[in-house]
Formats: sequence, C-alpha cells, structure tokens
Amino acid sequence: MGEPVQTLDGWYTLHDFRTIDWASWKELTEEERRSALDEFYELVDRWNRTAQEEKGSHTIASIVGQKADLMLMILRPTMEELNEIETEFNKLKLAQFLLPAYSHVSVVELSNYLSDDNKGNPYENPYIRSRLYPSLPKTKYVCFYPMDKRRQGNDNWYMLPMDERKTLMQSHGQIGRSYGDRVKQIITGSVGFDDWEWGVTLFSDDVLQFKKLVYEMRFDEVSARYGEFGSFFVGTILNREKVEQLFHIDS
Amino acid sequence: MGEPVQTLDGWYTLHDFRTIDWASWKELTEEERRSALDEFYELVDRWNRTAQEEKGSHTIASIVGQKADLMLMILRPTMEELNEIETEFNKLKLAQFLLPAYSHVSVVELSNYLSDDNKGNPYENPYIRSRLYPSLPKTKYVCFYPMDKRRQGNDNWYMLPMDERKTLMQSHGQIGRSYGDRVKQIITGSVGFDDWEWGVTLFSDDVLQFKKLVYEMRFDEVSARYGEFGSFFVGTILNREKVEQLFHIDS
Amino acid sequence: MGEPVQTLDGWYTLHDFRTIDWASWKELTEEERRSALDEFYELVDRWNRTAQEEKGSHTIASIVGQKADLMLMILRPTMEELNEIETEFNKLKLAQFLLPAYSHVSVVELSNYLSDDNKGNPYENPYIRSRLYPSLPKTKYVCFYPMDKRRQGNDNWYMLPMDERKTLMQSHGQIGRSYGDRVKQIITGSVGFDDWEWGVTLFSDDVLQFKKLVYEMRFDEVSARYGEFGSFFVGTILNREKVEQLFHIDS
Amino acid sequence: MGEPVQTLDGWYTLHDFRTIDWASWKELTEEERRSALDEFYELVDRWNRTAQEEKGSHTIASIVGQKADLMLMILRPTMEELNEIETEFNKLKLAQFLLPAYSHVSVVELSNYLSDDNKGNPYENPYIRSRLYPSLPKTKYVCFYPMDKRRQGNDNWYMLPMDERKTLMQSHGQIGRSYGDRVKQIITGSVGFDDWEWGVTLFSDDVLQFKKLVYEMRFDEVSARYGEFGSFFVGTILNREKVEQLFHIDS
Amino acid sequence: MGEPVQTLDGWYTLHDFRTIDWASWKELTEEERRSALDEFYELVDRWNRTAQEEKGSHTIASIVGQKADLMLMILRPTMEELNEIETEFNKLKLAQFLLPAYSHVSVVELSNYLSDDNKGNPYENPYIRSRLYPSLPKTKYVCFYPMDKRRQGNDNWYMLPMDERKTLMQSHGQIGRSYGDRVKQIITGSVGFDDWEWGVTLFSDDVLQFKKLVYEMRFDEVSARYGEFGSFFVGTILNREKVEQLFHIDS
Repeated sequence: MGEPVQTLDGWYTLHDFRTIDWASWKELTEEERRSALDEFYELVDRWNRTAQEEKGSHTIASIVGQKADLMLMILRPTMEELNEIETEFNKLKLAQFLLPAYSHVSVVELSNYLSDDNKGNPYENPYIRSRLYPSLPKTKYVCFYPMDKRRQGNDNWYMLPMDERKTLMQSHGQIGRSYGDRVKQIITGSVGFDDWEWGVTLFSDDVLQFKKLVYEMRFDEVSARYGEFGSFFVGTILNREKVEQLFHIDS
Repeated sequence: MGEPVQTLDGWYTLHDFRTIDWASWKELTEEERRSALDEFYELVDRWNRTAQEEKGSHTIASIVGQKADLMLMILRPTMEELNEIETEFNKLKLAQFLLPAYSHVSVVELSNYLSDDNKGNPYENPYIRSRLYPSLPKTKYVCFYPMDKRRQGNDNWYMLPMDERKTLMQSHGQIGRSYGDRVKQIITGSVGFDDWEWGVTLFSDDVLQFKKLVYEMRFDEVSARYGEFGSFFVGTILNREKVEQLFHIDS
Repeated sequence: MGEPVQTLDGWYTLHDFRTIDWASWKELTEEERRSALDEFYELVDRWNRTAQEEKGSHTIASIVGQKADLMLMILRPTMEELNEIETEFNKLKLAQFLLPAYSHVSVVELSNYLSDDNKGNPYENPYIRSRLYPSLPKTKYVCFYPMDKRRQGNDNWYMLPMDERKTLMQSHGQIGRSYGDRVKQIITGSVGFDDWEWGVTLFSDDVLQFKKLVYEMRFDEVSARYGEFGSFFVGTILNREKVEQLFHIDS
Repeated sequence: MGEPVQTLDGWYTLHDFRTIDWASWKELTEEERRSALDEFYELVDRWNRTAQEEKGSHTIASIVGQKADLMLMILRPTMEELNEIETEFNKLKLAQFLLPAYSHVSVVELSNYLSDDNKGNPYENPYIRSRLYPSLPKTKYVCFYPMDKRRQGNDNWYMLPMDERKTLMQSHGQIGRSYGDRVKQIITGSVGFDDWEWGVTLFSDDVLQFKKLVYEMRFDEVSARYGEFGSFFVGTILNREKVEQLFHIDS
Repeated sequence: MGEPVQTLDGWYTLHDFRTIDWASWKELTEEERRSALDEFYELVDRWNRTAQEEKGSHTIASIVGQKADLMLMILRPTMEELNEIETEFNKLKLAQFLLPAYSHVSVVELSNYLSDDNKGNPYENPYIRSRLYPSLPKTKYVCFYPMDKRRQGNDNWYMLPMDERKTLMQSHGQIGRSYGDRVKQIITGSVGFDDWEWGVTLFSDDVLQFKKLVYEMRFDEVSARYGEFGSFFVGTILNREKVEQLFHIDS
C-alpha cells in the first residue's frame, strides 16, 4: 500500500456558481429588484462582519462565458455553517433568479509534500494558520478549476512511492512559487466531499497570468502525466458597486 | 473463470436525492407549507414506527452544494416495499417541491473476502444480523458515493484470482477498521440493480474523517488501481427540528 | 476478418421507460384521471388480445429509483408495429404525464454460439420458436440493462476468432443456465437499431437472483474482459390492479 | 505524415431529428393543426419540386424509440441552402411542436480508397454523379448513425499507411456490396462540419438487414479496431399519407 | 520537466453560441420584434465603431444544425470588456430569445513553435500585431472548434521534448499554410480560461475547404496522435441584411 500524504485542513469551502435568469429578473419592477438586492446585501454584510472577525472569508465574482454568470466562494470553520449559508442564500428573493450552474465542496488543504519540518503543532504556526484560514485576496480576477490525480494504466499517481510523489510535487510547487508575486493560489481538498479531488482557486490582477501559470504547469510531469482537469471558470471579482452594475436594468 | 465472491445480503436500500424547488415552495402560503410538511411528517412517523419494530431503518439529511439539497436513505426487507415507499413519497404534496437529483438502488451486503469462518448459518449470527439489518447511526454527518471495481486493460479486478482479491480486500478493510471508532460504514451492493456496483454510506460526527478515510484508502491498491468512483454527496443528518428549519420560510 | 456469428431473429422489441409527472397528474380531477386510465386500459386490452393470439407480448412494470417510474416492454412481429404502438401510446391522455426517460429498440436474438446442431429450418423448430416469439413471463420482478461487447486495446471481442468466442460464450451460458429455474432471460439484439448492441431482460420471483446472476457473470471472462454495461433498471411487474394503485391519488 | 485520402464531395446534407411535443400539439384545435400541417406541406412541395429538378433530395421518416420521433434528411448543392431551409423550417408553425433532438451536418462523400481508376474528371462521370448527387431511395425503412475512425493507442486509423487503409477499406466495402441488393448506403463526410467524422444512412425494405449488415461489419477490422459509433436511429420512411397519420389526433 | 512553449497573446476572445427560441420570438408583435432588433443593432453599431478604431473586432454568424443557431465572436483588449459586453448583450430584449448553447473564452495566441527569429519586441512587429489584434475576415463561411493536446498513455504531447514538438508543429503548420489563400485561421488559447485548451476559428468563401483542411490535418501526427477535438460549428457570416432576414417573421 502506498504511503498516504498527510494534510493540514483549514476552513470548509463552498464554490457556488450561478446563471442569471435575465428574462425573469427583467420582468420584476425596479422596486422588486431593489428589494431583492438589498436583502442580498444584508446577507453579504453579515458575511463581511464574519470576515472582519476572521471567522471566515468570501468573494463574489462575475464569470465570463455561458458556464456561469456569478460565483460565490465562501469559507467557514465548519461544514454545517456552509450548509446553513447555502440554505439561507437559496431562500433569498435574488436566488430565484440565480439558477444553479456548478458547485464544489471542499476544505482548505496543505500537504506535507512540500514541507517536512513541521516542528511543533502546525495549527499554531501563524504562517500556516494564515494559509489554512485565509482572507481571500481582493484582486481584479479570479480563476477556479477542479482536478484529480490520474489513476490510469502506467500513469497512476496513487501507486507511486511517497518519495517520487514528493519530488514531483516539489518541482511542481516551484512553478507556482515563481508566479507567487502575480498569482495567489488556494488549494482546497475535496476527496470524500465532491466528485473531483481538489479545487484550485487562483487570484491575480493580470488575467493572462492564469493562462501562463496553468500552461507552464501542464508541461510539468505532475500535470502532464497525472493531472485530470474539470471545467475552468474565469471572471472578475465584484465589489458592491460592481454587483449593483451587474444586476442593474435600465428602466 | 474467476471464482465469484459469496455475499450475504440484508435490507434493500434506496438512496433518494432531491433538489428543493425554492421558488415554488416560497410561493405557497404559510398554511400550505405547514400542511405539506405535516403530511410528510405523518409518513416519517410511520417510518419511525417501522424502525422501532426493527423492520427497517432510514435517515434524512441535508446535502451541501448544488448536486442535491436533501437525501432520504431508506432500508426495508423487500424491494417491493422500497418501490411502494418511493411511490407514496412521490404522491406527497411536499414531493412536488423536491425535484429528483440522483438515486441509488441496492441491498446491504457483506462479502466473504473478509471472513472465512462462517460456521453455522450466518443469517442467524446476531453480529452479522446487526450489520445486514442495521439501525442507521444517528451521527452529525453523512457521506454517500457509488463505486465500481475497474475492468480496464491490466487493471481488471474481475480477472484477479480469488486469493489475490481476498488479500487486497483485507488490507483495504484494515484502513476502514482503523477509522472504526470515528466512521461507521455501510456497504450496499447494486450489481444488477443500479448503474454502479456498490454504494458506500459513511456516518461520522466529524466530517473531516470522511476526507481522511477516503483519501487514505485511495493510496491502497484496491482503490488506487481498481476503484472507479461516482459522485460524492456530503451533508448533515436532520432531526425533525432541523427539517423544520430547512423548510421554514420567513413570512 | 473475423467470422461473424449467425443469429436467429424473432420479435421486434421496444423497452419504453417513463417518469411520472406526479405534480401534473395530481392536478387533474378524479374524473380526468379515471378517463385517462380507462383510455390506457383500452389500449392494453388490445395488447392483451394480440398476446392471446400469440402475435406479440408485453409487460408493464414499476421501476425503483429515479431513473424511471414505469417500463413498457412490447414485442411485435414487425418494427412498423412498434412504431405505430409507440405513436398510439404517445397520443394517449396518460402519456402527457409519462415523460420519456429511456428507451431501447431491438429484436429477440438467438446466436449460434450456443448450438451447432441446427438441423432443418430453425424457424420451424417449436422450441426455438418459443424463444424467438416468447410470451413474457409473469414473474414478480423484472430487470433490464443494455450492453456492448468491448472493443478496446487487447480486450477486443470482435477481433477474437470464432472458436474462442464460442468457447467463452458457452462457459458464460452455463452460468445463465444454472440460474434457469430462478431467472428467465431474454436477449434482444440492437446492433444497427440502438446505441447499445444488446438488451438483457431478466424475470424472477426473487429480486436478489438478479444481483447474484449478474455478479457471478461479472467474474466470467465474457463480462470481466469484454462486457460494457449501460444503465440497470429493476422493478416489479404490474397487473391491472397494481397499475391502478400506482396511479391512484387519494382525493 | 500519413498520406491523406482524396475525396469527391457532392451535395451538402442535413439530418435533422425532432421530438414531437404531443401534449402541446393536442392542445391545438383541429383547424390549427390542419393549418400547421398544410403550411408544412407547402414547404415539402417546394422540396419535391427541387427534387424533380434534380437540384436536391430529401426524405422524412418516423423514428422508433425516445431518441427522436421524426427525421428530416435534406440534400442540397450548397451549405447556405441547408442553412436557409433549416431557418425556414424552424419558422413554421409545426416546428414549435418539433423539439430539437439531434442533428448532423455533412456532405455526400466518395473516397479514393475504393477505386483508383479515376480517369478523366470524376465529377463528369455519370455513375459517380449519381452517387454524389443521389435521389434518396424510397424504401420502407431508414437507419442513420454517425461514426469516427478511432485514434487510440495502437488502434490509430490516421497513423496507418495509405496502403493498409486501402486494403482494409476494400475488404470492408465488400461486405457493403454483398448487401447491395438489400441495403442502399449513403456515406456523408462531416470532418470540420460536425462532431462525428461521418454519417452513414442506410435504406432498405427489410429492417433486419440493417442489423445484419452493421453486425457483420463489426467483425471486420475496420469497425472492430477502428470504428467509433454514435447513436443509431431507425425508423420508417413517411409519405404524405403517413405524415398525416402520424400527426392526426382523434377529436 | 518539459520546456514550455512561449506564447504571444493578443485580444481576449468570446465565442458565444445561441439557440433561437423561435416559438417565443414569433409570439411577439411585429413592433416588439422591430424594437428588439433595433436595440441589438445599436449595440452592434457600437461594436462596429470599436472595430473601426481598431480596438476590437467581431463577427456574427448563422450556424447550421441544432447545436446552435447564432454565433457571436467578439475580440477585445481586456477580459473585463468581454465580461461587460456579455452582460450588456444578456440584458438586451433580443437575448431573451437567444438561449445559451455553447461558449468559449480565450485569447488570440501565437506560439514560438513556428518562428525562432523574434528579434526585437514582437509586440511592436506590425505583422505580428496584425495577427494578435486581427480584423476578422469578412468571408462567406466560418467554422469553430475547440481542441486539446492529448495526454494519454504513450500519446502525451506535454511529455514530448520541445524539439520534437517544434518539428511536429512545423510540419502541421505547413498544411495550414498550403490552404492559406483559401482559409484564414485564428488560433486562440484557452488554457486556464476554458475547458478546452484552444479554439480554432476558420474563415473561407468555400465551405468545403474547412473539411479538406481539417481532414488533411487529421492524418498529420499532431492531430492523429495528439489531437482531441470538441464540437464543430459551421455556418455563414451574417451582415445586417442577413441578420434581418434570419429574424424576420412573415406576419
């Protein structure tokens, strides 16, 4: 049996993608739309307070292309809270106009492929804590994709010895680090929680860096031989003003 | 021809996943919602009596993410009863607001990979009976996924000799047992009943243990080389009060 | 070029799976439902007369799980009749509440893998005729699944020599025969008619035998290396009284 | 680089499969249905005139099973005409009740695998012209399926030398020719036009010949190792009277 | 680790495919349709001005077959502009009748497989600029398909050495160039942006050249061994007059 990697696990994470039902949204009166948005903002304000208290984090983004129009990414200390937030969101007036498009359930994950020297309790290490319980970056662009490690014929990640996986992951990690000043990366593990094994969320002020990073990594053996990728979602992060613009209908 | 494994088969099992049609549910009056829920509770009360009489078991859970909102897992002595329960449920007022999302039809299964010493009639062995006709654990969290054993190129489970499968399954079973105090596991067989060959239902008070268990198993050869996995569903088990909260709409 | 197997072909067969639109069905008045069912029974009575005249056969079943609620399996001497029956059924009032879920178009098939000694015209042999033009068994349970023979890398059924296929199929057939008193099996060929190459319909009074038979066969090389399987549907066969119960709504 | 095959290309072809929305169609008044059909017949009459002038061909068929209810197959000298006909059809009243089910865009194709001796301009050869610009046979039954040549591991059609492909295709073609008096076959190429590389349309008065032909071919190396098949559609060709019957609703 | 290719990246590109909801469109009054089209033309006129100022480009096409009826292809200097244009388009009255069918998000890409001699800043080279920031050709026909480079078993593009990829791509490029006078080709990269790695958009006055080019390339090792292809869309480019015809309903 292969030696399993050890993981550190942080906040539970829900990526919730929605398609806007424009036809129905436009049928509302200006007042109904106003009231639906205000109700949504009330909820987001509560999320903002949670973020200020460092008991969670979240981001809202507009997605390009037809796969989705909106992404909510929400981090919380327990899976139950995610479940409650999802239900609360679904009961909003606005949610009637936000059709489910895709979702991913996971938990922020750090693996011991990349560092051996976990002296002491890593959950008390401030640097590690900042990565397990992150405040999501307020960049211009965001990118999300789920992925698996391949288990196929001779390309079976899970049959490799620990040492080989470690060497491969360290080389892989170097590419990520070389983009560190331009792209922030949050890895969330979803084995046992979702259909894909991981989610990768990238943050950058330069959208082209997503393409450059993912493309460069694809020539690395970890991706080239062992990566299986789901759908890619790319978009722009929305502040309140931009949410307002997105949902605004000229009357 | 490979030697087939022998199985002991217990209660027939229906996993029934639903998506809540919130928009339509909210359009009901408070009274209509009350009456729909009460009608559902009447049915559940009958299920509870069946469980008390040890003629079946069931659990109701809220699922995180868009794949489903609700899971019913129902165990009964005959397939016919499952069929009747499904129809009865579908005729409920509430069911109009619970759109089909996924289902799995199976039967609780124990295999002779793990034990040789079945002296006497195993169906009269109290320990085996407790596993074939289980009272579902009342934990905080539940996880479900369907799976197959792979039949592909050199990774063909069904072409392995019985001895090799037995050795592999015993090592695999050890991982499960090492989590025994944190995760209860019910295996249901669905060959001939459903598209996937098995369903795995995990119960735990610590949702992170689902991830740890499934991830650790993935490095074991049984999963690494021979496991094919369907969708993973994770959520929280609901008592009456929490069902009430889930469906509650502020008026 | 591989030597093709010779087949004997009997009645054309339509498996027609439907999902009941309960919400709309319940919106009808008691009288409308009565009249829709009576119109359906009229059609089924005509099918019954055809069956009595041994010019066809049919069965109606309730399916467990969300993949379908109802299965019609209809056998007729010509494809045209199937086409007409399908259209006639679709024009029924009841059909508006029976949404398409899955269908399979095929013809009852016997192959010469299993018998060499076809002396004389097999189409005049009473035993063979009884299998090509079968009266569907009136068992308690029914199971259906479509399948292909694999053509992949080294596991390519259609590249095997006739002799090897014959030997494999004979061993495979022995499993089927060993269940002969508990499970009746009808094989229908769909090459050129449907996406899958065959349909398998199993009939039994003990639903567990479906699982045991299919599972045992899976360890046989024909299934283990060469079988590709579609969706499995399992359910209970309905007589008039049970059809009535299925569609009955308490008023 | 492999030597590409040369093709002769004839009329552009649209296979357009539709599902009849029976519930809505039945809600129309007798007069509305009459008028919708008459408008459709007017269009078909224009298609008939085009066919008489040998500037195109078409066929209308009823499909068995749930994949579709109706198939239109239309051939024209330019892709633009297909586009216009499709739009014209979509604007018909009748088209509101004919939901899209599947379509295939292609061009009638002859390859030089089968004949070397193209002396002179093949586009002036009357026999070749009759195959590139065919008048569709008025048989009882029709069968359509799209297909690819496989590019997978050692089974990569496009990596074979021209000579080997030629030898294989000639042996394959012999099967087709041996059915020539019972099955007419039209091959249309769709590389660059549609998801599958070819469409195969078979015409016969004996529907069983579709099965026998496709099954026999499957044991030939071209199909066994190199064929990938899409959905199979089978049905009966409709003249005006049968179209009328298909859409007729008893009032 | 394989040496990654270097890319030059130009305008961001959205391919947006839509299906026309004819039934609803026809229900509008003549005036409502007029006003919806005029509102759309206003937006297109703004796009035209952007194109005249060489700050972007776009094309509108009618697609043959059921996969889509309409394609918008829009190029802009930033991803944000694409996002805004998409939202603006979705808020149009006309968009209510243009159901999402498929989309692809990418950026115009040139790779250094094909040229080594990038002396000086390529982004200042007029020829390169004309390819990175292209004015879309006004041909009669257009073809789009997304594609991946394969990573499977022995056919793993990303594991090949740079030199081998370069040699392969140069031979591949020669085919493209040999069609240069008949087919204009725009490659857009979508790694990190969309599910497929590239989009290929072809422009020609002779639709048959799409088939000939794609088919010839398929025998080249780059496609034969390493190409994975998504859906192919083919259609005719629409000027204002043809847009008007497409949406015109006889009253």
